[in-house]
Amino acid sequence: MFYIIGLGLSDEQDITLRGLQAVKGSTRVYLEAYTSILMIDKERLEAFYEKPVIIADRDMVETQSDEILHNAITEDVSLLVVGDPFGATTHTDIVLRARALNIPVRVIHNASIMNAMGACGLQLYNFGQTVSLVFFTETWKPDSFYDRVKENVQLGMHTLLLLDIKVKEQSEENMARGRKIYEPPRYMSIPTAVSQLIETEESRGEDILNPDTTLAIALSRVGGGAENERIVAGTLRELLNHPANAYGQPLHSLILVGKRLHHLEVDYAEAFAINRESWRNVAKNVYKCALDD
Amino acid sequence: MFYIIGLGLSDEQDITLRGLQAVKGSTRVYLEAYTSILMIDKERLEAFYEKPVIIADRDMVETQSDEILHNAITEDVSLLVVGDPFGATTHTDIVLRARALNIPVRVIHNASIMNAMGACGLQLYNFGQTVSLVFFTETWKPDSFYDRVKENVQLGMHTLLLLDIKVKEQSEENMARGRKIYEPPRYMSIPTAVSQLIETEESRGEDILNPDTTLAIALSRVGGGAENERIVAGTLRELLNHPANAYGQPLHSLILVGKRLHHLEVDYAEAFAINRESWRNVAKNVYKCALDD
Repeated sequence: MFYIIGLGLSDEQDITLRGLQAVKGSTRVYLEAYTSILMIDKERLEAFYEKPVIIADRDMVETQSDEILHNAITEDVSLLVVGDPFGATTHTDIVLRARALNIPVRVIHNASIMNAMGACGLQLYNFGQTVSLVFFTETWKPDSFYDRVKENVQLGMHTLLLLDIKVKEQSEENMARGRKIYEPPRYMSIPTAVSQLIETEESRGEDILNPDTTLAIALSRVGGGAENERIVAGTLRELLNHPANAYGQPLHSLILVGKRLHHLEVDYAEAFAINRESWRNVAKNVYKCALDD
Repeated sequence: MFYIIGLGLSDEQDITLRGLQAVKGSTRVYLEAYTSILMIDKERLEAFYEKPVIIADRDMVETQSDEILHNAITEDVSLLVVGDPFGATTHTDIVLRARALNIPVRVIHNASIMNAMGACGLQLYNFGQTVSLVFFTETWKPDSFYDRVKENVQLGMHTLLLLDIKVKEQSEENMARGRKIYEPPRYMSIPTAVSQLIETEESRGEDILNPDTTLAIALSRVGGGAENERIVAGTLRELLNHPANAYGQPLHSLILVGKRLHHLEVDYAEAFAINRESWRNVAKNVYKCALDD
C-alpha cells in the first residue's frame, strides 16, 4: 500500500492516529520537502517515529516517483506532506502513477490552510476561488492573479491568497557553473504580499483593492496554539505598516475580506485587529455590515 | 482551557495526537451530535477514550453553552465535532461566549469535507463558494441556492453542495401534544439532491444545469478507506439513475464540476466514473477540455 499522509499545519503532534499507524507500519517513509522545509525538522520526526525519514524534494515526487513507489505493491510506503495531500500542493501525478502500476493508494487526510483558515472567523462557504501570489522581480510582475481576485471581489466573496515559497533556488553564478548549490529557502512575507497587491492595483487601476478600505487577515501556523499561531486583521495599509515579525513564523497566508461580510464574522475577527476601531469602522461604513454600534 | 477538537471525517482513528491528548486531559468531554449522530458511536468513543462522553445537541451548543463552558477557566473541557471546528458547521458563538468569560480557547483542526473533497481529483483552488441544499417539501422549495450555483458556473468554478440533515424532527402530532419524541435522523441522498437540482433548473430555466451535460461527483466518507469511502462521478442524469446504495453511508456531498476543468482533473476522476466513456466525452465536447483522445 502507498500511503499519502497529511501532517496538518503545525508540528508532529498534528498527525492523526490513522496516519501514525501507517508510518509505523511502513518500510520506507518519505517527507515531501517543498513546504515542510520551513516547518518540520526531519530529525525531530525521526526521533518521534523511531525510524528514518527520507527527504523527497519536488523533483523526486514529480519525476522520480517510481523510486518512492518501489515495492509498494508488497510493502507499505508512506509519503508525508504538510497540511492535506490535496491542499494547496496536490499529489495527483504520483497517485496516477501508482494506479498505473496497480499499487493500492490510501490518502490520510488532515487540516490544511484551505479549511483551517476558518480560525480567523470568516465563514468557509463565503470564500471564492483560491489565488496564488508569486514573488515579483524587477522585470517580471505577473498580474493574472488580479483577475481572479476581481472575480471574487465582484461577487463579494473572500479570497485566500497563497504566498510564494522559493526552495532550491540557484544563484546565476552557481547555475552557470553547473554547481548544485542552493540558496536558503525564501517565503513571501505579509508586507511583501500587501505591497505587491497595492502595486498591481495601481498599475491596473480597476478599483478592486484599496489600501484604506480593503480589509484583510494574515495567518500563520494556524492551530499551533498561542505560542505559534498568529492571526492579524486590518486594512491593507495597516498590515503593510505592521512590523514583519508580528506575523510569526512562515508559512504565511493572506485573506482578502469580501463584501458579503456578516456581522458575526466582524465580531469574531475583531479580536485579531491591529486597530479595533478602524476594523469596525471600515466593516460598517465601507462593507455596510449591520453592526450594533 | 476550552478545546474544540475536530474528529476528521471517518472514525475514532482520525483524531490527531494533539486532539487525543486534550481529550485525555479533560474533566468533561462533549460530542456535538448534529452531524456525528450519523457517523460515530458514542459508546465506541467512550471505550476508546476510556472516559464518558456527553452528547451535546445543537441547542445545547448554541444556547446552553455556559453549561459546556462551566469551570473551563480552571479545568480542561473538550467539545468534539465531526470534521473541522470551522467546517460546514461553525462554532463561532461558543468561542465568542468563552472569550466573554475569559476562558482560553484552543481549536484543534482536522480534515473537513471543505478540503478533503480534493480526494475526487478536482483542484481545491478552482472551487467557488460553497452552497447548502435543503430538503424540498410539497409547499416549500427554496431556490436561492440556484443563484449561488449560477455565480460559480458563470465563472467556471466547481461548487461543493452540502446536503441537508434533519435531526430532532418532531411529527406534527408529537409537536402538537408537546411530546419530546423525535423522528429518526434523515440525510439527503445523492439522487434526491440531483432531482432537486433538475427540478429547480426546470422552474428557473436559466440553463445553468443540464441533466446530460453537467458533470458532478458524489462523495461519502472521504478518507475512510476502501471499505467506507465512496466517490462516484457522472452526468447529473447518470447520478440520478444510479442505485442509491452505491453512494455508501451518509453524510453525502455533491460537487458540480465547473467549466475551467483541467485535463488532469478529468483523468484523475475518471477512475470514479459510472461510465468512463461519457465522462470523457462530456469533458471533451461540452467542457472543451483538452484531452489526449
